Amino acid sequence: MAMEGKPFDALDEKLQELVNAAFDMKGCAYCPYSNFHVGCAVLTESGEVYAGCNVENASYGLSICAERVAMTNALSKGHRKFRAAAVSCDVVDTFKGPCGACRQFFIEFGLDWDLYMVKPDKTWMKMQMGELVPLPFTPASLQEERVK
Amino acid sequence: MAMEGKPFDALDEKLQELVNAAFDMKGCAYCPYSNFHVGCAVLTESGEVYAGCNVENASYGLSICAERVAMTNALSKGHRKFRAAAVSCDVVDTFKGPCGACRQFFIEFGLDWDLYMVKPDKTWMKMQMGELVPLPFTPASLQEERVK
Amino acid sequence: MAMEGKPFDALDEKLQELVNAAFDMKGCAYCPYSNFHVGCAVLTESGEVYAGCNVENASYGLSICAERVAMTNALSKGHRKFRAAAVSCDVVDTFKGPCGACRQFFIEFGLDWDLYMVKPDKTWMKMQMGELVPLPFTPASLQEERVK
Amino acid sequence: MAMEGKPFDALDEKLQELVNAAFDMKGCAYCPYSNFHVGCAVLTESGEVYAGCNVENASYGLSICAERVAMTNALSKGHRKFRAAAVSCDVVDTFKGPCGACRQFFIEFGLDWDLYMVKPDKTWMKMQMGELVPLPFTPASLQEERVK
Repeated sequence: MAMEGKPFDALDEKLQELVNAAFDMKGCAYCPYSNFHVGCAVLTESGEVYAGCNVENASYGLSICAERVAMTNALSKGHRKFRAAAVSCDVVDTFKGPCGACRQFFIEFGLDWDLYMVKPDKTWMKMQMGELVPLPFTPASLQEERVK
Repeated sequence: MAMEGKPFDALDEKLQELVNAAFDMKGCAYCPYSNFHVGCAVLTESGEVYAGCNVENASYGLSICAERVAMTNALSKGHRKFRAAAVSCDVVDTFKGPCGACRQFFIEFGLDWDLYMVKPDKTWMKMQMGELVPLPFTPASLQEERVK
Repeated sequence: MAMEGKPFDALDEKLQELVNAAFDMKGCAYCPYSNFHVGCAVLTESGEVYAGCNVENASYGLSICAERVAMTNALSKGHRKFRAAAVSCDVVDTFKGPCGACRQFFIEFGLDWDLYMVKPDKTWMKMQMGELVPLPFTPASLQEERVK
Repeated sequence: MAMEGKPFDALDEKLQELVNAAFDMKGCAYCPYSNFHVGCAVLTESGEVYAGCNVENASYGLSICAERVAMTNALSKGHRKFRAAAVSCDVVDTFKGPCGACRQFFIEFGLDWDLYMVKPDKTWMKMQMGELVPLPFTPASLQEERVK
């Protein structure tokens, strides 16, 4: 179930590190086309934090969101299990969920881990990955019985 | 709210056309890498049906799902408003939702239209696009007030 | 080898139809983010012309170029062999090649077919797909002998 | 112009580090769908090496190649200028160029830097990025004069 709160009292130290990493990463965004800065950080099962920002491209469709940059950063260090992710952008009034492509990228590695959406005032909202993608298409879907 | 049913009694004629178009389109799929055939059709506000299948690529990341092929087919004919989409694959036992990328592609054109997920026996499940993407990132998100 | 020329004298009737289809398709582009209109048309081996425009998305990375829209349109009608493609944008002074993603999408279906790049004054430049992607990664690459 | 050679005699120390990083990174690839392992490393102007592997997804189109993972890794550390990249896969007999999407991702950051393609025996072939994308679509293309 979705939960909201003030981040720095409510989160333990490791999650604060995660949220801060996402927050700070916005400054590195390469977003000359949208001017929409996003930062993301992921917390591996083993307790390490990897971060990323959005990277855009003159061919818009080749742009990669911060969420996938953070994930590939961790994955290319060998991590495959995750406890939480945090995503931060500059929108003031509402919590912004990730785009659908990033949701799919997250759930490749499980449905039962948490996403923290962080506003510029560092208040946050938490949802489980599985809540963000009802009726998900997952790696297991490719293994289900098919006709023919 | 999600609804399930037998398609051909429960759906009006136009929706039957839609479901059948998605179903038949699987046969055109270019999926030499996954061998996972998907068909999709979309129903425009003006009552026209456009269909598409998945098209894969040796560089896996350039593969495009059936849902986006159907949508771009309709969009390149000038359509921008949609009433429903239907998606069909060969998985027998469960209704398969679209991948997150396709959900995002759908909601670019609104949250309040319907997706029919169709099994090989032509039973279906219906969800609203907005239900498939809780806390969505939408075109309006880019216009919200931002810090700095 | 690259060739340039005035299109309407130099091209046979079918190629003129192709170039015109690409040219006209720009008007359907859904490009609220870049405002960069592109049209593309592809000519199948059997002589049919399919067209497409670019379709962008609030999550920039989900945008699909005109070239891929035209191709998926033809592919979802069952076509797999192509004679030529034409791409048209509004840039005045130089011929614009497609982005790399679209080049890869084209060469999935062979290296020895032609791309016509068309300027707003309808002059054109022609290159072979294989020329646009030196040392290509192709479907055959996945079948080559690998270590381990 | 393309150049080939034995890597460890012909390359200076920093480039050897780059080639080795790409080579070793293959072992981290998350490629359960293609089973095609790729590693990439990029050398920043300031002399730092960042690496990445391919990361695939059950929705094939969301897969990201090693080249883009390495690039986003470096970019999210603030780097914007690059001297060279190396890419390594398991294909034995031929040098494999990157897919078109990755070429486009590379040239977002310039045409005049080098790509080393590395075979399993660590022999290499070098091409300039600009050679890999003739008639490129670049960030500057979006700034050129357009009709209307």
